[in-house]
Amino acid sequence: MLAPDLIAKKRDGEKLSRDEIKFLIESYTANKIPDYQISAFLMAAFLNGLDTDETFWLTETMLHSGKSIKFPKNTHPVYDKHSTGGVGDKISLTLSPLMASVGYNIAMLSGRGLGHTGGTLDKLESIPGLNPFWTEAQIKKRLEKCRIAISGQTRNIAPADKKIYALRDLTGTVESIPLITASILSKKLALETDGIIFDIKVGSGAFMKTKNNARRLARSLLGVCGKFKRPAVCLLTDMSEPLGHYVGNFTEIIETIDFLKTGEPEDVKAVTFRLGYEIARLNGYTDGKKRFYDRLSEALDSREALKNFLDFVKISGGDIKMLSDPKSCHKPKAGGKLTADKTGYIAFYDTELIGKASLVLGAGRLKIEDKIDPMAGIYICKELGRKIKKGETLFKLFGSNRKAVAEAKTMLSRSYKITKERFASPRKIITLVEK
Amino acid sequence: MLAPDLIAKKRDGEKLSRDEIKFLIESYTANKIPDYQISAFLMAAFLNGLDTDETFWLTETMLHSGKSIKFPKNTHPVYDKHSTGGVGDKISLTLSPLMASVGYNIAMLSGRGLGHTGGTLDKLESIPGLNPFWTEAQIKKRLEKCRIAISGQTRNIAPADKKIYALRDLTGTVESIPLITASILSKKLALETDGIIFDIKVGSGAFMKTKNNARRLARSLLGVCGKFKRPAVCLLTDMSEPLGHYVGNFTEIIETIDFLKTGEPEDVKAVTFRLGYEIARLNGYTDGKKRFYDRLSEALDSREALKNFLDFVKISGGDIKMLSDPKSCHKPKAGGKLTADKTGYIAFYDTELIGKASLVLGAGRLKIEDKIDPMAGIYICKELGRKIKKGETLFKLFGSNRKAVAEAKTMLSRSYKITKERFASPRKIITLVEK
Repeated sequence: MLAPDLIAKKRDGEKLSRDEIKFLIESYTANKIPDYQISAFLMAAFLNGLDTDETFWLTETMLHSGKSIKFPKNTHPVYDKHSTGGVGDKISLTLSPLMASVGYNIAMLSGRGLGHTGGTLDKLESIPGLNPFWTEAQIKKRLEKCRIAISGQTRNIAPADKKIYALRDLTGTVESIPLITASILSKKLALETDGIIFDIKVGSGAFMKTKNNARRLARSLLGVCGKFKRPAVCLLTDMSEPLGHYVGNFTEIIETIDFLKTGEPEDVKAVTFRLGYEIARLNGYTDGKKRFYDRLSEALDSREALKNFLDFVKISGGDIKMLSDPKSCHKPKAGGKLTADKTGYIAFYDTELIGKASLVLGAGRLKIEDKIDPMAGIYICKELGRKIKKGETLFKLFGSNRKAVAEAKTMLSRSYKITKERFASPRKIITLVEK
Repeated sequence: MLAPDLIAKKRDGEKLSRDEIKFLIESYTANKIPDYQISAFLMAAFLNGLDTDETFWLTETMLHSGKSIKFPKNTHPVYDKHSTGGVGDKISLTLSPLMASVGYNIAMLSGRGLGHTGGTLDKLESIPGLNPFWTEAQIKKRLEKCRIAISGQTRNIAPADKKIYALRDLTGTVESIPLITASILSKKLALETDGIIFDIKVGSGAFMKTKNNARRLARSLLGVCGKFKRPAVCLLTDMSEPLGHYVGNFTEIIETIDFLKTGEPEDVKAVTFRLGYEIARLNGYTDGKKRFYDRLSEALDSREALKNFLDFVKISGGDIKMLSDPKSCHKPKAGGKLTADKTGYIAFYDTELIGKASLVLGAGRLKIEDKIDPMAGIYICKELGRKIKKGETLFKLFGSNRKAVAEAKTMLSRSYKITKERFASPRKIITLVEK
């Protein structure tokens, strides 16, 4: 087999065989095929597509380039939740302790934030002392102990994906449904969980800006999961505004604690509860949504979910004293606020721009080596559809220095629209996509 | 400007600006953009196309990456002929001395053969002593002296093309009309001739297998030449069988001498004369084809064309004694023949396969560093449409060793079809494409 022939085959819109895909990816991972051939292949795949078989074979080869983690018997049922990334998306942190309270273990390998979306690892690391990088043995042992395992990706998970993703990022081949599918699943399938629930974000703050594209990704993910016989469902949820009021890192820990104490804010609750319910359904639960939601509410009221979260922080080395009153520990170096420029209803948020403003404040990174300010972030006072008066505070900014705050303020001033007409707030749960 | 953004723009089918194309190609030539980004761009351009403007800008940037050669006043009119490559294509060698006889100077930068098509440089080098690599000063001086300048490409002509072509060859991005156009023209335009005639080969031995594709290339070449205000025409000529009887290097020198003495074979004459006539027309000649053909015939009969060729060989350092009776100097190390397997009319040649058989015999190279056997090649006894009897010789093989001869024989045995029905031989001149 010769790489140029396989590139030409995909270029001409033909279907590659399992062996051909294996050859390309394995040779590349072993540095036997140069970057420039794989980038040409990726562009051909981007433009001509890969069908479900090809995506399956690509996923399989990338998955088998690394190790898998099998969980001990007594840690089942264990589920994984994957979000395609959003602004203010702290659902991994709210969902896992809640589900642990009602008998479902959660295991995830999480990533850092890059660009306008946040990363669970960065949020966890904003808690002093917390080390989110666990060994395989720690993942198993800690899951057994506190029912939650959220860890940074270990080095030996899907190394082929790491290499290919870095190349895609530099060659305009990121936004391809089959390539995204293979990248996500090569890592997700490495955790041998009982099933995966995908939270596919749709809207101005998400990678998938349209419902149509989100549906295509959902079908692609479910198609390949099916070939691996891994139970899975996709929930399409709204990202036309940030989730919750807080965007950032420690700021989102504040909101996580708030939620685990009060069940608020409402949008975080809606998404967390529904994802939890879908996990239960994947596991065979048939007693209906209302009953399940009641159980989740009890776990909040009894503070058991909060206890689970604190146990998880403690086992990760984090300082839980700081979490008893996290708001008082929130000490940003610089700050500011932005007021509404007119009176009316909030009709639009450019959520990606809000994410980027948060990044400018120090809460995110443009390059993987950038340092994060754990205290930086934004507080959004009003949800979409809410009434606001001219001069009323719309955003609070927390940052590292005045210059960055000023820059973020300018960005935020362009990030919203207020209309005279009443505007209905969007539904948080858009739709469920099952096989 | 960032390379990934420009790649994504072409990926999404948008038109790049002159500055964007300049940025990509200049940065790449200066090693400021890595191979893997340009290969992704080339694949996007391959699949989404480049329009005439973009192709013009690409050509322009590649052309300006190197030097141009301006000819002295007294060497005009000077024309360039470019063939897209075929099997047995010796027209550069027959056309230039003939046109020199009737007052048209010919200057070309030629290439080596690669794959199944031969290269003029290799053919010239099969003449002992001949050095086809001329300096710029030699090109000018020798053109003045003997009206013919055929030289290997000097190092400083379109270095960007050299770099990009090498990458295209390895990334399945060769067969793209706009990329081919830019590659050809970035070199052709570097010779500041009065015009260019393109001989676009069509058929089983050509890169363009169909008339449709050849027409597209013709229109693309003429469109970009027009933007440079360089007069040009394209002649589509048949390559469904080798040109002439001989394929190889010294074997084609034999046939060139034969033609310059006798005006045969007929197909070489048809293509040579017509290309010559089109050059004259480009130069304003209006006296009609018949009159011009008569002048060319006179130049053959008077042996003036032959004398011009020998002068050109001599000025290049070649041994012209060997050319007084070249057939007697043709001494291949090994040989063989293949006879027809049935009686009938020759209905098909797989001309590319014949080219490959010639390569196996030692007349060509698969890799640029391969050595050529100047005496190797093939003699094809019968043209398409001719009657042949079972057992009659169809191919004579000249090679370096028996094993290669046996391998080439097997290839040639699959390279033709004989039918019972009478088969009309194809017309050599398919069509003329003008602006």
